[in-house]
Amino acid sequence: MTDASTESREELVMQTVEQRRELVNEAIEEDLPIVKPERLYEASRYLLDAGGKRLRPTVLLLVADSLADVEPMSEAYRKFPALDGTELDVMAAAVSIEVIQSFTLIHDDIMDDDDLRRGVPAVHQAYDVETAILAGDTLYSKAFEIMLDTGASPERCVRALDVLASTCTKICEGQALDVAFEERPDVLPEEYLEMIENKTAVLYGAAAKVPAVLLGADDEVVEELYQYGIDVGRAFQIQDDVLDLTVPSEQLGKQRGSDLVENKQTIITLHARKQGVDVDSLVETDDVGDVTEAEIDAAVARLEDAGSIDYAREKAQELVQRGKDRLGVLPDNESRYLLEEIADYLIERGH
Amino acid sequence: MTDASTESREELVMQTVEQRRELVNEAIEEDLPIVKPERLYEASRYLLDAGGKRLRPTVLLLVADSLADVEPMSEAYRKFPALDGTELDVMAAAVSIEVIQSFTLIHDDIMDDDDLRRGVPAVHQAYDVETAILAGDTLYSKAFEIMLDTGASPERCVRALDVLASTCTKICEGQALDVAFEERPDVLPEEYLEMIENKTAVLYGAAAKVPAVLLGADDEVVEELYQYGIDVGRAFQIQDDVLDLTVPSEQLGKQRGSDLVENKQTIITLHARKQGVDVDSLVETDDVGDVTEAEIDAAVARLEDAGSIDYAREKAQELVQRGKDRLGVLPDNESRYLLEEIADYLIERGH
Repeated sequence: MTDASTESREELVMQTVEQRRELVNEAIEEDLPIVKPERLYEASRYLLDAGGKRLRPTVLLLVADSLADVEPMSEAYRKFPALDGTELDVMAAAVSIEVIQSFTLIHDDIMDDDDLRRGVPAVHQAYDVETAILAGDTLYSKAFEIMLDTGASPERCVRALDVLASTCTKICEGQALDVAFEERPDVLPEEYLEMIENKTAVLYGAAAKVPAVLLGADDEVVEELYQYGIDVGRAFQIQDDVLDLTVPSEQLGKQRGSDLVENKQTIITLHARKQGVDVDSLVETDDVGDVTEAEIDAAVARLEDAGSIDYAREKAQELVQRGKDRLGVLPDNESRYLLEEIADYLIERGH
Repeated sequence: MTDASTESREELVMQTVEQRRELVNEAIEEDLPIVKPERLYEASRYLLDAGGKRLRPTVLLLVADSLADVEPMSEAYRKFPALDGTELDVMAAAVSIEVIQSFTLIHDDIMDDDDLRRGVPAVHQAYDVETAILAGDTLYSKAFEIMLDTGASPERCVRALDVLASTCTKICEGQALDVAFEERPDVLPEEYLEMIENKTAVLYGAAAKVPAVLLGADDEVVEELYQYGIDVGRAFQIQDDVLDLTVPSEQLGKQRGSDLVENKQTIITLHARKQGVDVDSLVETDDVGDVTEAEIDAAVARLEDAGSIDYAREKAQELVQRGKDRLGVLPDNESRYLLEEIADYLIERGH
């Protein structure tokens, strides 16, 4: 298998996630049905139903296929063969991870006062802040209930729940650091990387680790897969920071440059600051509603001149390479190849 | 052992919770230390440190003592003898339940726009809404992490986590119903009782059930203890509704009559409505800051005339009796007696 070109890679990855997305979406409807009180569950499902690539579930299902060394998607994910011959529902684990992702987005949008998400109003806008808090809280416990339903042995179930709980704690810590960094001009790059590890990368880590735990893989395999998720998750966040500056608003589903307007620290602004760029005065307003495209264009030009956007791209590239190298613990098969392609795609994607 | 009088009962129960409170508070500091990012963990601990009787942990520890049939507090709760001779940390389970309670209070205060709690500013007032959301989210996952640390067998651990997760889901459903009921004048008493079962009673149910699961009690015992918690938890909520009308604001730690001002449905207003009282016009304002003591006094007098407050007291009495009867599944010992006394106390307490 040779490396795909960027275009054919994007096509391959899109095909890979699309094939699984339908299954994942069906599973979400099954595992998180809209029951009474309906308004609560509708609000809980609203963002899940609004779209999303299902990248984390795709990573989880690919790790399962690769570890079991079966043809991708050849086995039913609801009755998946563990390494010891027992059967388990890896799809439930995939749904659980996606449900956690959705809960964090709902609460983050309240905290960051972001009105749009996936091109539709955020939950606190479509409903209200109270309902959005509660919808997030409901998804939180539902994710644990769903993860309890894989049919794995109690030993493995406990380990998977441990991953889920500590992942959620780290996401909260990461979000708290992200908010705190807005007030601090002196954030170190290491601190930033720690923040995005917690805020974003740990959920990719969990997506790659949980199936290994559930299937009964060796500890070394479990740990390397976790680190694969951490590496590509960090790269994913750095690419997000790049995209926030370089992709048109309608394609992003929110205002381009909103990180700059809201004084969010990113690896890009930290680099630029070190190069002597006065990052704080790049955009005058603090309100995404007031900023002009021309202002954003000028700010991006200055960051490009300082080499800060290229620096971020290189950093992401480095992390993706490291992540791919870790996949050596998996059998050499089609699913492992697809996990490598996804890693590359994460930093090549345009949105 | 004979029934205590109300005064000596209050003394006995206060002594019982006080003896355990110190141990529980120490355990909270151990299991939920203030680590980095400090501001997040300080906010998470703020309400836990502000007080609280620790009633739910006390119930949990008493059930453990009773089931193990040991002298109350004679065994170390961190190394507690399960029924099969293994050792486990029941204190971690007690902390986990209290941490869930604290998370729900923090988010509820944001949703209900309540500024005071336990006589101090609510977390979203002492910090800000963003931090309060995140502090609640952190406590949420921490509760699962702490419950994972009891040292119980994986089988029992999974069951305890299942109780915890489904309890949290029900609490969210109950809170959603509570909010929805504010807009509905036609709530049925059964609907109200279902709402408070979910919003309040399930956490008492979990406090009584989890130690039985962890110690390895029979299923029938586990179920009866759960129902004990549900019964007394419902009674507790009804008493809360009575106290909101009958106890001075400074003793309540918040404005007396705030439920009426905020149009909250309670068993009292539902009864009064059925008696023909125009509940919606009992208090003119919708803002707790605007209401006068005289208005509240007049409203309470009308509810008393309609027999609605007595009706609530009788309902609570009935539930407490049913709950106490369920304790027959426990060995006849001092801890069981104390669980009966706590049930009585819950509807006799003045705050």
